[in-house]
Amino acid sequence: MQNDEQEIRQLVATWMSATKGGDVKAILELMTDDVVFLVAGQPPIFGKSAFAAAAQAQASHGRAQFAGTSDIEEIKVFEEWAFMRTRLTVTITPPGGEQITRAGHTLSILKKQSGKWLLARDANLLSPVAKST
Amino acid sequence: MQNDEQEIRQLVATWMSATKGGDVKAILELMTDDVVFLVAGQPPIFGKSAFAAAAQAQASHGRAQFAGTSDIEEIKVFEEWAFMRTRLTVTITPPGGEQITRAGHTLSILKKQSGKWLLARDANLLSPVAKST
Repeated sequence: MQNDEQEIRQLVATWMSATKGGDVKAILELMTDDVVFLVAGQPPIFGKSAFAAAAQAQASHGRAQFAGTSDIEEIKVFEEWAFMRTRLTVTITPPGGEQITRAGHTLSILKKQSGKWLLARDANLLSPVAKST
Repeated sequence: MQNDEQEIRQLVATWMSATKGGDVKAILELMTDDVVFLVAGQPPIFGKSAFAAAAQAQASHGRAQFAGTSDIEEIKVFEEWAFMRTRLTVTITPPGGEQITRAGHTLSILKKQSGKWLLARDANLLSPVAKST
């Protein structure tokens, strides 16, 4: 269990650094084929290939700068499955655009496949942070 | 497993009808003591007693009318734990206020305690639905 938890923490760290580096290929290796991403006010993304297509469409507008911190508040492991709650803060600067900061929680389901933990379901509850003036 | 899934569907049905009926006591019986509710743009609610306090504070303003539909898109059971994804539409009419409709997904973790399924973690991704004019 302890080891599983460490592997899940490593998954989050790898996800964050791959996102910062714009390494979509590395991110795709961290999710199941049938992954589902839920975001408020947006249609869900069903499946790794849909995630890849969305990432590619976004990249065609130029690469955004990404900074973020993640605080893992809870991980519970049940053999081949786990759930995780995190608090995230992400700052995105689109090419030529204005910086946007979003913060809030995520609730995720993870699955162990062939000995490797992968993201399987993700609920992203981040909301825009008002700029301090 | 089949039976567990049916019991979880019944939990959702009971939750919806208790909410419509304003029966907070019945809703409280459907969650674990350490339940966590996550909603975008709001601080999390940690624990059944915090949920009860929030419900009581809301009720002091008079009882809102509630209507809603739930569509369970996925349930996966792992012995004593399960996760569930639903699509919800809820319409709330506060006393003397204007009707608000919110729609979207939820991702929940459920736990079986003493043979009874309870809500343990809930991510609510509902967002306001623009009124048709």
